[in-house]
Amino acid sequence: MIKAGIIGATGYAGAELVRLLLGHRDVEIKWLGSRSYIDKAYASVYQNMFTLIEGSCLDDNIGELVKQADVVFTATPQGFLASAMQEEYLQQAKFIDLSADYRLKDVDVYEAWYHIGHKSPQYLKEAVYGLCEINREQVKAARLVANPGCYTTCSILTAYPLVREGLIDPDTLIIDAKSGTSGAGRGAKTGNLFCEVNENIKAYGIATHRHTPEIEEQLGYAAGRKVTVTFTPHLVPMNRGILAVAYASLVKKPDGSCPSEADIRAAYEKYYSGEKFIRLLDADVFPETKWVEGSNFVDVNFKIDERTGRVIMIGALDNLVKGAAGQAVQNMNLMFGLPETEGLDLVPLFP
Amino acid sequence: MIKAGIIGATGYAGAELVRLLLGHRDVEIKWLGSRSYIDKAYASVYQNMFTLIEGSCLDDNIGELVKQADVVFTATPQGFLASAMQEEYLQQAKFIDLSADYRLKDVDVYEAWYHIGHKSPQYLKEAVYGLCEINREQVKAARLVANPGCYTTCSILTAYPLVREGLIDPDTLIIDAKSGTSGAGRGAKTGNLFCEVNENIKAYGIATHRHTPEIEEQLGYAAGRKVTVTFTPHLVPMNRGILAVAYASLVKKPDGSCPSEADIRAAYEKYYSGEKFIRLLDADVFPETKWVEGSNFVDVNFKIDERTGRVIMIGALDNLVKGAAGQAVQNMNLMFGLPETEGLDLVPLFP
Amino acid sequence: MIKAGIIGATGYAGAELVRLLLGHRDVEIKWLGSRSYIDKAYASVYQNMFTLIEGSCLDDNIGELVKQADVVFTATPQGFLASAMQEEYLQQAKFIDLSADYRLKDVDVYEAWYHIGHKSPQYLKEAVYGLCEINREQVKAARLVANPGCYTTCSILTAYPLVREGLIDPDTLIIDAKSGTSGAGRGAKTGNLFCEVNENIKAYGIATHRHTPEIEEQLGYAAGRKVTVTFTPHLVPMNRGILAVAYASLVKKPDGSCPSEADIRAAYEKYYSGEKFIRLLDADVFPETKWVEGSNFVDVNFKIDERTGRVIMIGALDNLVKGAAGQAVQNMNLMFGLPETEGLDLVPLFP
Amino acid sequence: MIKAGIIGATGYAGAELVRLLLGHRDVEIKWLGSRSYIDKAYASVYQNMFTLIEGSCLDDNIGELVKQADVVFTATPQGFLASAMQEEYLQQAKFIDLSADYRLKDVDVYEAWYHIGHKSPQYLKEAVYGLCEINREQVKAARLVANPGCYTTCSILTAYPLVREGLIDPDTLIIDAKSGTSGAGRGAKTGNLFCEVNENIKAYGIATHRHTPEIEEQLGYAAGRKVTVTFTPHLVPMNRGILAVAYASLVKKPDGSCPSEADIRAAYEKYYSGEKFIRLLDADVFPETKWVEGSNFVDVNFKIDERTGRVIMIGALDNLVKGAAGQAVQNMNLMFGLPETEGLDLVPLFP
Repeated sequence: MIKAGIIGATGYAGAELVRLLLGHRDVEIKWLGSRSYIDKAYASVYQNMFTLIEGSCLDDNIGELVKQADVVFTATPQGFLASAMQEEYLQQAKFIDLSADYRLKDVDVYEAWYHIGHKSPQYLKEAVYGLCEINREQVKAARLVANPGCYTTCSILTAYPLVREGLIDPDTLIIDAKSGTSGAGRGAKTGNLFCEVNENIKAYGIATHRHTPEIEEQLGYAAGRKVTVTFTPHLVPMNRGILAVAYASLVKKPDGSCPSEADIRAAYEKYYSGEKFIRLLDADVFPETKWVEGSNFVDVNFKIDERTGRVIMIGALDNLVKGAAGQAVQNMNLMFGLPETEGLDLVPLFP
Repeated sequence: MIKAGIIGATGYAGAELVRLLLGHRDVEIKWLGSRSYIDKAYASVYQNMFTLIEGSCLDDNIGELVKQADVVFTATPQGFLASAMQEEYLQQAKFIDLSADYRLKDVDVYEAWYHIGHKSPQYLKEAVYGLCEINREQVKAARLVANPGCYTTCSILTAYPLVREGLIDPDTLIIDAKSGTSGAGRGAKTGNLFCEVNENIKAYGIATHRHTPEIEEQLGYAAGRKVTVTFTPHLVPMNRGILAVAYASLVKKPDGSCPSEADIRAAYEKYYSGEKFIRLLDADVFPETKWVEGSNFVDVNFKIDERTGRVIMIGALDNLVKGAAGQAVQNMNLMFGLPETEGLDLVPLFP
Repeated sequence: MIKAGIIGATGYAGAELVRLLLGHRDVEIKWLGSRSYIDKAYASVYQNMFTLIEGSCLDDNIGELVKQADVVFTATPQGFLASAMQEEYLQQAKFIDLSADYRLKDVDVYEAWYHIGHKSPQYLKEAVYGLCEINREQVKAARLVANPGCYTTCSILTAYPLVREGLIDPDTLIIDAKSGTSGAGRGAKTGNLFCEVNENIKAYGIATHRHTPEIEEQLGYAAGRKVTVTFTPHLVPMNRGILAVAYASLVKKPDGSCPSEADIRAAYEKYYSGEKFIRLLDADVFPETKWVEGSNFVDVNFKIDERTGRVIMIGALDNLVKGAAGQAVQNMNLMFGLPETEGLDLVPLFP
Repeated sequence: MIKAGIIGATGYAGAELVRLLLGHRDVEIKWLGSRSYIDKAYASVYQNMFTLIEGSCLDDNIGELVKQADVVFTATPQGFLASAMQEEYLQQAKFIDLSADYRLKDVDVYEAWYHIGHKSPQYLKEAVYGLCEINREQVKAARLVANPGCYTTCSILTAYPLVREGLIDPDTLIIDAKSGTSGAGRGAKTGNLFCEVNENIKAYGIATHRHTPEIEEQLGYAAGRKVTVTFTPHLVPMNRGILAVAYASLVKKPDGSCPSEADIRAAYEKYYSGEKFIRLLDADVFPETKWVEGSNFVDVNFKIDERTGRVIMIGALDNLVKGAAGQAVQNMNLMFGLPETEGLDLVPLFP
């Protein structure tokens, strides 16, 4: 039985972690950290878990937590774990950080996009970027996993095979992504009120969203060179789900012809055919967020726009599952040598 | 391994059955019946189950189905199973009918409210009304279970203990219920279009809804006499969930005083304290449909309105789970001697 | 040109007042009061009015405001106007208060339900309860109008004719009301976040909601005696709209028969046939909130439940229009001798 | 008083026309055509207009209609008006066609994208593309106006000034657009049911949507040469609204520098500063569909992505108003010499 602790257990991602771990046969939750709800019964903060979970919320105390837990999940604001991390913690427990603190290898890029100093850059090299399908082997050996962002998981997995295989020109990549509102967190902000979000759609963080450098770094590894993308997120009146639509120009083949649908499908299959959580849909069936809701799936597909020589790549996931807590559990499974799908055999909820 | 067949597998309740049975370790789905989608791959009708289920939809053929299956679920229009039922079928498989065909014991009441003749009234006496928490023992021995309606499950379980204990006057019962739109089915009707339901709430079936006699019959058994209620359903712009709010006058105790909060709480606890799927919430915490979404729970609570001498009873469930498919699985578990919660350990999804 | 000032212009009701007054040919907005947004351009707080309105938000200063305005609308928290009111203000401008401060004639009832002391009870007698269709003549002569609550407007107008005509027993009145989320205001509270409200329905303020005594007082006048009701509000995942469903037992006629549908329809017509803003729907067509969205209409209808001897009365309105700002404008029209419908000829928006 | 007739009055666009014309002081509706609801009272099809409109739906009869009306609006399926049009009709009434029949000048393009033959190509030259802000003078003189599509109005107006001024390379234009569900019409299709659309977002018509050639033709005129774009529409769980996000590479100035924010703003102002219905938002305030709901506004703004040398252009409108019925009324006003804003002084509804 793996003993797990969660810091930031009362945010939406933290609560989703609790939901998933309650259904995981090899895990026992030992610590529910939440500075906002200290001493309050967890099930009174998330009444959906009434009768399903005992215990009250605890103040932050990593030193004590690592004594009790084998794995620590941090679903905390940017900078929290970077400020707190110490070598002795990592010697006592494995860490899976759902914040951005250890996602970017270049500390300057982190500080430029997040506008805060990084307090423990010495762990950036060690930290493994926990996009399981890409970095599976490194995750297995990691002490510290940087769990990827929601938009980034969706965007990267949607475009990865075509970038890796050189089928598209990465300099032409434009990603237009749409997210449900749970991605904005449970903080009480006017802009996230029902009446402001409902019956509305808007773009935000235009040309400045913090997931941009994360996408660029990972797709840069795939391309074998620096990649710069335009990324635009949107807020959609729904609770869960991200849809990423990526546009790029196809690279002509040596004979001057464009890659065919079969070429592109072969590239997706090359990387994803064995992946349980990535579903390459049939031709002309395109991802919808509702089809993955509540599950750890990423659905992907593509369409060639012959008139313009572009390919449109589309991916969908549940931002709280594969985009956060589900991927964290998947990483934990890898780190502890469990079957990768343990606790994640979730059928999407429809409707 | 129990072999299961579903007739009406492509309606919302049928699809929810498939979702639940896919997560049930003792069941194998052998038959996906759907007259509307004959020969079409099931996963292409419900893309959420892509890669999770094989097989195509089959035309109705109960004779063949009972040879292949141990249990048959019928999520079909009223009258379908009543017209088709034969003794030999019941000898070959157990039946769980999600329609209303065998819910009402009085064939005249059935025909008056459903406006169709009943073709197999000879099974009405044998059929067990599958409200597991009330009729658990009878269900265990049943060949034919009439799975209760969604509104009725919620309404009955919300009021049952107080009716049974004589704490309220059943003649004063008024039930105002609100349902998500999946209760209206997947049929393409103008009234169920997104633009007609969204940003709207309406009552319907006022004083005429077919779940009324079902509530009356069951609460009549609890009261030990005939009960007549006013029941008003509403359509709410959400996918899942039923909230039932029941109003009734409290019956004074022999000493002339009204039942206290403790009296009423004791009544609920008497019947529900051992029930896994019924959660009596803490004082002044009232059910919300979101807290049970995707799960088999019914949340209940109450409030005394001292100024008027009434009690307001509130219950919430997911209409597709405890209100349909989940309860059907619970009935199956009972009928086959499995743990009652098998396949139903579902944490509600929030948000 | 009537000069109007609004205190509390940046709440949802205040903003709706601005929307309506912008379309009123006889009114000029002179003062946009908002303590939260002092000196901020109004159109930057409500971008929907960009290019349509000039001016910035002003701090509260009633003394100055009454010099500039002919009419003052206060869309403020309970207690604000009661604390600030002075005779000299009323001598300089007419007041329409959208808060509850002057709605209840009995100061003890006010203090018991609102849990605050009333600072200017001397105006309670003078203040006119601004339910235009009931108190039209008094409104015309008023200096101070207490604009009714949203739930109360809907509930009272739905039941009024039957109470007034003695067709129902007011002691049996139960009102189950459902509201869109704009009724909860623009304050940043966790409970009103999109993810908490969406895909959810809940009752709240059970047996304790502050609109209860207001309904009781007004229906008491109609009944000619004290009336006590059970009132339960609900939060519905939509922006606008209230649906009130009222249940009551019919009073038998002297000959022992129950009132007929014709009797009840006649009662509604007696009071509402000349009313532009109250639409009695055709038989068996029941109000839906979407049909009145954005307009000043109240739609009403009823159904007799012969089996129980009850009548179900249903009403719908837009909580921000007839339930707040629209009724305030209607009151203003009456107070200033304008056509009652001026600025309120709004066709409901559908879909 | 202009006498107006509507064919297709019971679709969502037709009903919005009725709503707007009811508020237009110079128009009288003489004809409500609807093959689906012949002889049914119009207000019973759209209960929001109960008491506001008399009359029943009429079968199609253009010959008779043109005798009674000065202007005919056709909110009909593609091909309807093209098949019916005759010279004598145009001599008796002006026509504003909300379908695509006369939008594309090249009949081959029409037939290729719409998969139907064009029955009256002889009017293509005469028909004026009714994008009022671009073609105002031609509209004034027109007998036959092709009212633009909803996506196209939004897309073209968002990108027009930059294309016209040569600030962007039109070959790099990618338009990612999102629409509320009313754009899908009132037909009873499974895909448009509440439960299928709610809590979901999807792209559709990828690389094949029929509004593509319309955007290309109009932006081609602006560019002075053929333009080919990638256009992807999405279905969003809301009733109304379109958000178009257009991406393009900036064209370097002769001195090798990129256009600045001031350059781009100047371009928008050059074309839109006098336009009542186009609102260029302040810097860093980006369009949201809710801010234009129910009104004839298009809100636009842009952001330079310096890292990639692209500009992101964003526009929002209400698909049923500026995207359909409102623009049709605006065209009518121009054609009949009325003030262009008559009947269109609508303050957006928020929330």
